[in-house]
Amino acid sequence: MSRLWDRGDSTPDEAVERFTVGDDPELDRELVAWDALASAAHATMLAEIGVLDAAERDGLLGELAAIAADARAGRFVIAREEEDGHTAIENRLTRALGDAGRKVHTGRSRNDQVIAALRLWGRDALAQAIDGVIAVAGDLADLAERHRETSLPGYTHTRQAMPSTLGFLFAAHAEGLADALPWMETALAHLDRSPLGSASGYGVPLPLDRRRVAELLAFAAVQENTLAVQNDRGRGEHLALVAVALPLSDLGRLAVDLIAFSSDEHRFLTLSPAVTTGSSIMPQKRNPDALELVRAAASRLRSRAAEVAALYGPLPSGYQRDLQLTKAPFLDGLRLALDSFAVFRVALAGLEVDAARCRAAILPATAATDEVYRRIAGGDAFRTAYRAVAADPAGAVGADPAAGDPAETWRRRTHLGAPGALELAPVRERLVAAAERAAAVRRRFDGAWALLPGAAAPAAAG
Amino acid sequence: MSRLWDRGDSTPDEAVERFTVGDDPELDRELVAWDALASAAHATMLAEIGVLDAAERDGLLGELAAIAADARAGRFVIAREEEDGHTAIENRLTRALGDAGRKVHTGRSRNDQVIAALRLWGRDALAQAIDGVIAVAGDLADLAERHRETSLPGYTHTRQAMPSTLGFLFAAHAEGLADALPWMETALAHLDRSPLGSASGYGVPLPLDRRRVAELLAFAAVQENTLAVQNDRGRGEHLALVAVALPLSDLGRLAVDLIAFSSDEHRFLTLSPAVTTGSSIMPQKRNPDALELVRAAASRLRSRAAEVAALYGPLPSGYQRDLQLTKAPFLDGLRLALDSFAVFRVALAGLEVDAARCRAAILPATAATDEVYRRIAGGDAFRTAYRAVAADPAGAVGADPAAGDPAETWRRRTHLGAPGALELAPVRERLVAAAERAAAVRRRFDGAWALLPGAAAPAAAG
Amino acid sequence: MSRLWDRGDSTPDEAVERFTVGDDPELDRELVAWDALASAAHATMLAEIGVLDAAERDGLLGELAAIAADARAGRFVIAREEEDGHTAIENRLTRALGDAGRKVHTGRSRNDQVIAALRLWGRDALAQAIDGVIAVAGDLADLAERHRETSLPGYTHTRQAMPSTLGFLFAAHAEGLADALPWMETALAHLDRSPLGSASGYGVPLPLDRRRVAELLAFAAVQENTLAVQNDRGRGEHLALVAVALPLSDLGRLAVDLIAFSSDEHRFLTLSPAVTTGSSIMPQKRNPDALELVRAAASRLRSRAAEVAALYGPLPSGYQRDLQLTKAPFLDGLRLALDSFAVFRVALAGLEVDAARCRAAILPATAATDEVYRRIAGGDAFRTAYRAVAADPAGAVGADPAAGDPAETWRRRTHLGAPGALELAPVRERLVAAAERAAAVRRRFDGAWALLPGAAAPAAAG
Amino acid sequence: MSRLWDRGDSTPDEAVERFTVGDDPELDRELVAWDALASAAHATMLAEIGVLDAAERDGLLGELAAIAADARAGRFVIAREEEDGHTAIENRLTRALGDAGRKVHTGRSRNDQVIAALRLWGRDALAQAIDGVIAVAGDLADLAERHRETSLPGYTHTRQAMPSTLGFLFAAHAEGLADALPWMETALAHLDRSPLGSASGYGVPLPLDRRRVAELLAFAAVQENTLAVQNDRGRGEHLALVAVALPLSDLGRLAVDLIAFSSDEHRFLTLSPAVTTGSSIMPQKRNPDALELVRAAASRLRSRAAEVAALYGPLPSGYQRDLQLTKAPFLDGLRLALDSFAVFRVALAGLEVDAARCRAAILPATAATDEVYRRIAGGDAFRTAYRAVAADPAGAVGADPAAGDPAETWRRRTHLGAPGALELAPVRERLVAAAERAAAVRRRFDGAWALLPGAAAPAAAG
Repeated sequence: MSRLWDRGDSTPDEAVERFTVGDDPELDRELVAWDALASAAHATMLAEIGVLDAAERDGLLGELAAIAADARAGRFVIAREEEDGHTAIENRLTRALGDAGRKVHTGRSRNDQVIAALRLWGRDALAQAIDGVIAVAGDLADLAERHRETSLPGYTHTRQAMPSTLGFLFAAHAEGLADALPWMETALAHLDRSPLGSASGYGVPLPLDRRRVAELLAFAAVQENTLAVQNDRGRGEHLALVAVALPLSDLGRLAVDLIAFSSDEHRFLTLSPAVTTGSSIMPQKRNPDALELVRAAASRLRSRAAEVAALYGPLPSGYQRDLQLTKAPFLDGLRLALDSFAVFRVALAGLEVDAARCRAAILPATAATDEVYRRIAGGDAFRTAYRAVAADPAGAVGADPAAGDPAETWRRRTHLGAPGALELAPVRERLVAAAERAAAVRRRFDGAWALLPGAAAPAAAG
Repeated sequence: MSRLWDRGDSTPDEAVERFTVGDDPELDRELVAWDALASAAHATMLAEIGVLDAAERDGLLGELAAIAADARAGRFVIAREEEDGHTAIENRLTRALGDAGRKVHTGRSRNDQVIAALRLWGRDALAQAIDGVIAVAGDLADLAERHRETSLPGYTHTRQAMPSTLGFLFAAHAEGLADALPWMETALAHLDRSPLGSASGYGVPLPLDRRRVAELLAFAAVQENTLAVQNDRGRGEHLALVAVALPLSDLGRLAVDLIAFSSDEHRFLTLSPAVTTGSSIMPQKRNPDALELVRAAASRLRSRAAEVAALYGPLPSGYQRDLQLTKAPFLDGLRLALDSFAVFRVALAGLEVDAARCRAAILPATAATDEVYRRIAGGDAFRTAYRAVAADPAGAVGADPAAGDPAETWRRRTHLGAPGALELAPVRERLVAAAERAAAVRRRFDGAWALLPGAAAPAAAG
Repeated sequence: MSRLWDRGDSTPDEAVERFTVGDDPELDRELVAWDALASAAHATMLAEIGVLDAAERDGLLGELAAIAADARAGRFVIAREEEDGHTAIENRLTRALGDAGRKVHTGRSRNDQVIAALRLWGRDALAQAIDGVIAVAGDLADLAERHRETSLPGYTHTRQAMPSTLGFLFAAHAEGLADALPWMETALAHLDRSPLGSASGYGVPLPLDRRRVAELLAFAAVQENTLAVQNDRGRGEHLALVAVALPLSDLGRLAVDLIAFSSDEHRFLTLSPAVTTGSSIMPQKRNPDALELVRAAASRLRSRAAEVAALYGPLPSGYQRDLQLTKAPFLDGLRLALDSFAVFRVALAGLEVDAARCRAAILPATAATDEVYRRIAGGDAFRTAYRAVAADPAGAVGADPAAGDPAETWRRRTHLGAPGALELAPVRERLVAAAERAAAVRRRFDGAWALLPGAAAPAAAG
Repeated sequence: MSRLWDRGDSTPDEAVERFTVGDDPELDRELVAWDALASAAHATMLAEIGVLDAAERDGLLGELAAIAADARAGRFVIAREEEDGHTAIENRLTRALGDAGRKVHTGRSRNDQVIAALRLWGRDALAQAIDGVIAVAGDLADLAERHRETSLPGYTHTRQAMPSTLGFLFAAHAEGLADALPWMETALAHLDRSPLGSASGYGVPLPLDRRRVAELLAFAAVQENTLAVQNDRGRGEHLALVAVALPLSDLGRLAVDLIAFSSDEHRFLTLSPAVTTGSSIMPQKRNPDALELVRAAASRLRSRAAEVAALYGPLPSGYQRDLQLTKAPFLDGLRLALDSFAVFRVALAGLEVDAARCRAAILPATAATDEVYRRIAGGDAFRTAYRAVAADPAGAVGADPAAGDPAETWRRRTHLGAPGALELAPVRERLVAAAERAAAVRRRFDGAWALLPGAAAPAAAG
């Protein structure tokens, strides 16, 4: 009897089995080490309240450490007839330890067990994602400083609007990424609560020490109402995806910019061969595949976030099997985001800028707005000056001798600090502070692995 | 020349005009007062840096106050040939004041003007939404206390799982709503930053005092990089919708529960006539329309949040006209959420509970899990006891004399505090703290209206 | 008692009333004439089976004709306390005719009445949409012929790939639009079935002649199972939106091409002033707003199609009030599509092509693939030739004297017919055949209005 | 040099490689046999136009047959450094055959190669899906006949509306599924066009015989414009997903009905143990997991259809790498749909009906509408009778002696044919006709495999 619930009263239908098991055996390979960790905390607490004796606990901790090590080494096998990783773990514990294995499920259900593994994995992945966003934002801030005087057309509607600089564009995206951090931290805090003790949503008749389990797993808090725990299945996954889709959408938009600026018609930038690929038929081609895939990854993440919301939203309270289908978008989505951040850093590192072409591309007519302001300084009302210049933009812009120097016009614009500072200092401060918080969080998370001697934290997205 | 940018060099096509203007004239009725407020702050600052003289400023403030008052009274008219409310305001100021009106647009673009109005409106609506969620959560906590001993089947998969209580279900939803508050506050903080001074994303050649404008409008901060301001168009709307879709989805799920529990087959609850409607053909019918519409509103909100993300995500940096289509989902979506919270309170206030039917519905077999734990107490391993009970659940559950008292089995379950306390105290604390923060924020927001004497803050969703 | 179902046993709550009534009174203005038509067919049949006498029938037909005329003239008022247009019609009939008005609802429910109006409106809008797509596709085919020898870089990944022509690009889009027609016709056939007689899904105890009503309304068929009728609510709206989102997405992609090709960096094309607008701050700007809004409309349509699917998908069989929220996306979505087709025609009509710039932009390296094939003709294996050219594309392409003539390389490519024919003939044939089918369908639809003498078919999207 | 386009001019970055290769090596295992088939047709045509000699062609056909056989047996390995299955095939052909392998890519690009494989796989999967839908609809029609007199409450808003029958519910769903067939056939026809000869969208300078290749592959037509071929990438996948999401959404709704009717509170039905599973903690539980997963699969399919539309919609003309991300939703989505249809048949086959409970559940008040019509027969106007019954439904319904026989009230309702016939005959006819068309299509498709002697058609969704 491989399945935990099997009563032997049905002849299983093969198609149904394949359908209900789904891709859990594959997906759960990622989760086994985290389930082992959660199980270790649960067993430790069960011993403290007298449900297990010391020998049972020690046996379980030892075997769980071996399971986690096997999982990290890719050696832990989940048979399809076991349905999922949680069953495979209990089966192995029972094979190895007998009654201690049969006791490990005391005080829990697969429901809270799954949520625990997903949250442990997810909070780690989110912490990595925060680091990834901080790293890309830092790269962009560096690029912004390097190119703060590299004149470039500023665009609206993909038409040249006013003279700007490449550094300013990068700075805008650095700040945009920094804006995503509070959302990612909110998502992390959302996941950083222990679900254990919820069982199937209605608890168990045992004096479980839920706070102790949370402490052992280095959770920031216990999620209190046990039915609220189950109602968060799907919701937590959705929110994590929303939180990583946000910075990824920002990078997707920057990818759009970089793809355009490196086109044959712009040639402001050249992409590194490391992020371009060729064609099977056209020998001369170098295509911006990696950036296109970041753009596409952003689109997929947005869709998957919506997919999970559409799954959990219409359901009644409590667990329903539909929620199984939130696992793949959650795991795949966070991994895709982490990969995207890493790839984007490679793209930025290899970017070559043709400052002369950037500068030469600026059309004289983009000085029109500055000309309006020159006339305002001479006493015209704004709308009056605007209409006068609009009547003949080409003629009007010739009047200002400084109009020919786009860097100078850029420096004249409103700045919160020094003109060349690009408002980067506050962004840097936000990044540093967020990095410190993230490091503290990850130290806390990593500390939980002391429960399983010899089994260090697996790389969540490795 | 009604349009700000008209050069008279094109023969307008009627279909194109209708298409590009879209529903802005209708939507902007909601925004006029907020644009007047932002314009007042802008004019005040322009006077402080010497762009306007005192008489011009006073003229503008007076007329803007009149505009805001007219808008609140439903008297402010936006002609289709004016395109939008922002143009209508400038036209009226110019008609009334001449050159002062022609100067008000100095130092800004319609781009940052629109964002300013949307953020002022949106942060107010979000603050109201926070209050709405706190109120519904409070109602649920009250109901939870009232029904904490009202036995009810606990469900998973819509099948009876273990004996539970109605109070526990309400408490789960109260806690779920409380979980939404950090997301809503993150969204509010996201919008609570002044965009003014961004112009079209590239600033203007004037020493605008952006911090002063932010202070006058009671914004918590200035959004620094001016292109980042424009890149947030769509993104901010998306995030606000995500943040209100979250508690609304929770209520949608509770609506599913309440609709089921009040069905002819359950009759655990009776819905108030205030939230039911009848049929045009079947005289006996009372349908749970209001709760169905809350469920549908949650679905619409989820879809509209995704719609806005799909709109802004694929665009290059800077403003593109596509972003006009984010306005309707933003305004309509937040209003729909506010209405849904109000309607849910009416539904909860009129709920009648048939405690006897709730109690009587509990099937004896739901005692099976408790029986497993009775056997564990007698020395069985969990999985051994589970399999023994699973072999004959009906027979097994008869053995426990206490199994017949569901309220007692409920009290025996793991609780973080006292058994009947339902973990409500920490939820109450979170609600109180959030209410205090929301009140402080709204006082700050309302303070900005001192700029326009005589024009109190309009009800955002009135 | 304005509402059909009111029993006077509840004190209505104002917020709930506003919420449940929603925007039906506004939306239904579009539907009143169609409901009048359906009611006329229903009344005619009721008289034929003896439920109404001739005088009652004639009174109803006369008043319904007046209602339809009023609706077309914008004079038909729906009070909010009437909930919707269907109620307003019954109330007016009863006021005008007494018992005949009280009898008109015999044999139907508001459920099938709403579906009937939506289908009549929707099949007409879909027929218009088919005409719109055929017209734009025809414009594109004409442009394709005019520019079939206008050399242009052919792109993949927004990088120049091989020499192509502008005509070929237009021809591709003409064919793409033609591909949408079978989907639109499938959608039209889906809606072109009479729902009447379904009542609330369970019929009525009367020998209604459902086929006769279908015939009077010029429906192609009766939808047979009456519960299937109700289960199609939402589904039919979804499918209509899917069907118009398809060609609109194609136009959105062409809009992306046209926006890029008319940018300051490409200047292959100049957009007509009729489809561009200016900036409130930058006097020189002309922005491609109309095309951006077509792109955005395509995105909105895709999202609204998904929104409606997400609404109806999770519901049990039979009508649920959630489905009210499918009406606005359906009406608004189809209107937006029709407007988009009209606007696109204006954009195409005013397009100016700079053939010299198109030709000059072609990079020599785009001849590399042709060079590979020149070597294959000389005996090389493809991959061998490819690798040789890839090793030095710039050097390799100089070898072919014909490489300098992109139009010639274009003519050499595989063609199904004559090289300059651009495969347009089969597209033209498909368009002509579809136009004939659409015309026949519209003649049939218009014929139904004979029921209401003096009330010609309203323009569905006017 | 494993990759087709590698020029050796870049040091590959490992993260980028992993990211750009993505899951193609896994996904393409499904496509290898179909690519082999398309390559065989291509090689046959190349020989006919003199590009290959007979020995080269025979060598290629032999090795391609071996590849297809290996793929079906799960023995064909795609190394990650080969990027995808298409490269792996060319590499193997070159290893085995030398120059013949180097020539197979003459006249094509990976672009049209991928589309060809996807369409061949997809049209087969769609044909299977059509068969699946016909089978489930047939089962439902059979159940409808078996239970046509099994009285059951008819519901709207999940409240009892009027007496109905279980057979009528099944018949409604059978008809709903039949409505999906034209959409699925439209999707099949959309995919059933040969893309080969498109190359990268701009053709090749060779007199390829595109019609001959189409004939060899048993395509119904050639897709003419070669850029239109590339513009259909993503669009075709989207439409196929839309077409299978439609019947799956219908089944999802029926799953909702069956889950409710088999709940502890209804017990109208009992689900077969074959489609239920148990709980890891609650020994008595049997949960409707399979039906919940069908409901969830419908939701996922709707979301994935939207995901693909959001991917391709915002792109310019021609291939962009974003489109790689349409492959997984397409393959996974169609497989999930096929599995869902199979599982649903198992669920229907094992359904047990408790006719007595169904009958006993009908509330007397559901006779109210019939009572209204009894009064109409006595001369009352509908609305007058309605109001009279509404004033006291419980009292009113006692008056009709026949009201106590729900089966009799059901027979009295409007029917298009004989009362017990349930309008099933036309549905059966539609199913039979569609089955014949599907069989003809599949025979045609299977015929293409004659190109690869010894390699029969692989099961698309095996």
